[in-house]
Order: sequence, then structure tokens, then C-alpha cells
Amino acid sequence: METTNDGQVPRAVVHRLSLYLRELQQLMKNGRSTTSSTQLGKLLGFTDAQVRKDLAYFGQFGYPGIGYRCEELLVAIKNILGTDHEWPVAIVGVGNLGRALLGYRGFHNQGFRVVAAFDTDSKKVGEKIEGILVYPTEQISEVIRQHRIRLGMIAVPANSAQIVADELVRSGVEGIVNFAPVTLAHPAGVWVERVDLAIELEQLSFSVVNRQQNT
Amino acid sequence: METTNDGQVPRAVVHRLSLYLRELQQLMKNGRSTTSSTQLGKLLGFTDAQVRKDLAYFGQFGYPGIGYRCEELLVAIKNILGTDHEWPVAIVGVGNLGRALLGYRGFHNQGFRVVAAFDTDSKKVGEKIEGILVYPTEQISEVIRQHRIRLGMIAVPANSAQIVADELVRSGVEGIVNFAPVTLAHPAGVWVERVDLAIELEQLSFSVVNRQQNT
Repeated sequence: METTNDGQVPRAVVHRLSLYLRELQQLMKNGRSTTSSTQLGKLLGFTDAQVRKDLAYFGQFGYPGIGYRCEELLVAIKNILGTDHEWPVAIVGVGNLGRALLGYRGFHNQGFRVVAAFDTDSKKVGEKIEGILVYPTEQISEVIRQHRIRLGMIAVPANSAQIVADELVRSGVEGIVNFAPVTLAHPAGVWVERVDLAIELEQLSFSVVNRQQNT
Repeated sequence: METTNDGQVPRAVVHRLSLYLRELQQLMKNGRSTTSSTQLGKLLGFTDAQVRKDLAYFGQFGYPGIGYRCEELLVAIKNILGTDHEWPVAIVGVGNLGRALLGYRGFHNQGFRVVAAFDTDSKKVGEKIEGILVYPTEQISEVIRQHRIRLGMIAVPANSAQIVADELVRSGVEGIVNFAPVTLAHPAGVWVERVDLAIELEQLSFSVVNRQQNT
């Protein structure tokens, strides 16, 4: 894998890989078997040069006179993203957001299967939501190990997010999507993506105020 | 405002502005009046050079021997992001996700006030959720204009997202956060941020598989 000076693929490139994957899935659904950097770029509002540069980090995918073979590129991107196999996922916190996450169709389509949910509320424990059993938080470690879960989503209030993160990490979780509005401390070898929904709005207010196509 | 060759501030820089703002708010809550690029970087896992370079796009904020004055930098960032005044926001779609968004405390803290929700389900119309009235989607245009709403969030199924987006744009909305798993077409002068929750998981599976600190 070709990388930048510091041996890393820029975060923005990895993010765009996900977007290319979505468009390839859509193209194949529509019966297309090949595409081009121009078409992918157009669908997403990027230049064709951007698309080619991004993919060049990971190899040579195009064919002269053909462009990209959709299925081949799709398989390659899933390989790079690690979603060529299914990941079991846990969700901690079953409030409105946790419920929305449990019902979110987009995870399974992309290779993520939510297999367990956790909550401290004894009224929720034992309930099945969207077919997923809600366990008490005391069983985090046991259930995580049993299902070999490596990815978790935290949808609890800010003041308990760090405790939950620590428990997930102790249980072997290596990647956490954090919806709580707080920066989580975590050891090296564990990755955290923080989702702060207000940030999306701030990016928009920036664009609207500065009339800048912020892509 | 200093920009790149193409006259744009990179998207990643604008995103990090939001993160700096969060840390400044937390520091001030903890009684701190000054900070430094080193401290901000450490809190977020960036280098101090990164912090200084990001802020340099927008001006000169530090003082020799002092660093940054928290409140001054916070006010400056809010100015840049356009959140020095409050933005009224609309949410279309009141399923689990829409409800979670209506209950999300993080918006108001950052200068966004949800003032209206819309749904096609007549059982939900007229309901008040978290103090916000649910209107029928037929009234989108009327309510958006009345409240001078410029930002909207779409939390409807994929197959109706484009119709909703078109209606929001026709009504004067300039920025849309799209939670539906579909790329929305939109005219120039309208900005769309797509939130695909599976992308967060994909970024994590990439990091776990490639052992790369993807920040």
C-alpha cells in the first residue's frame, strides 16, 4: 500500500473509499458492469483526477479503453476497508439513538451485523429490539468475548461514555464509534470515531456563510 | 481568509475547527482562560504544528508567552463557522432516528435550534416531541418560510429523500444534513452533508485491519 510521508493513508482518502463503494453498489444494482473515474467523480462531485489519485494509494485498478470493472473494484475496496468479511458489532445504550442504530438498515448491507445491545435500565434488559437482545451492562465483557466482537458503538450519556469505553476495551473491542459528546481516552491499538451530529450542521453553516463548496 | 490554490479551505480543516471549538468549550468549563497549540493537539491527538497550521488559514490568534486566549479563540471560531448567531433547523422524518435527533442535546449548545419537524404519518402529525411540533410534509414550504429556516436534516427512507430535499431547496433551505443512504442531487448554492453511519464503522474496520491511526 502506497502511503504519505508518515506511512499513512490520509483519513479523507479512506473516507472517500466508502463513498466510491456506495456508488459502485448503486451502479451494479442498476446493471452497470464498468465505470470510469469521470463517472464516479461526477456522481460524488469530485474531479476524475481526485478519484484516480485516491485509488492509486492502493493499486492499479483501471483498464485502458474500459475504465474500472465495477465488481472487481468493489471487491478490492471491500478488501482494503476490511469489510470482505462480516464484523459482529455491539451497541451500548438503548435510548432513542440506540434504537435508531438497532433499526438502521445500512449496517448489514455493508458487512456489519449488530449482535448485542446493552443498557443499564432493567426495564429494557431482556427486551428484543429489531431482533437484538438487550443485555445488562454487567454482561458486556462476557457477551463481547463470547461473540468475538471487535467493534462497538456507544450511545450513552456523556458522563458514562468513558466508563463504557474502558469496559469495551478491556473486553477486547478495538474500534469504537462514539456518539456521546465527549472525547474518549483510549490506549494505542484502539481506534475511536466520534460522531458529533452538531459538527455536520457546523460544516453546513460554514458553507452557507462562506459560500464555499466544502467537499 | 487565506485559502488553498483553488480558493478553498480544505474540508478537513473546517472539520477540525469544530473539534477545537469543543475542546475550548470544555477547557473554559474547567475554568481555564488560556491554552496552547500543544495542549489542544494533545487533547485531540494532533501535533501542535497541525493546530497552528489549521488556525493560520483564518488569522493570527496566539500571543507570545501566553498562547491562545480561550474565549477569544472560541468567539473567532464561532464567527468563522457562522455559529455566532443561532440557526433555526427543521427535521423531516420522525422515525427512531428523527426522534433521536429531536432529543439530541448537542445541537442547541452549538447554536442550532430545531424549530419544526415534519412527517407523512398522520398519527405523528400534531404530536409534540421534545417540545417540537410535528407538521405534515405538505406544510414544509409554509413553515420553512415562516421560520426563515436555512438548514434542514433529512431522516426519511432512501426512496423519499430526494423528493424531500427538492421541497426543502424550493422552500429556501441552503444546507441539508442527509441521513438517508442515497446521494442527493442539489443545485449549486445548496450544501449537503451526508451522514452514512456505516461509513464510521468502515473507517474503524480499515484502522483495525491496517493497524493505522486514521486521524
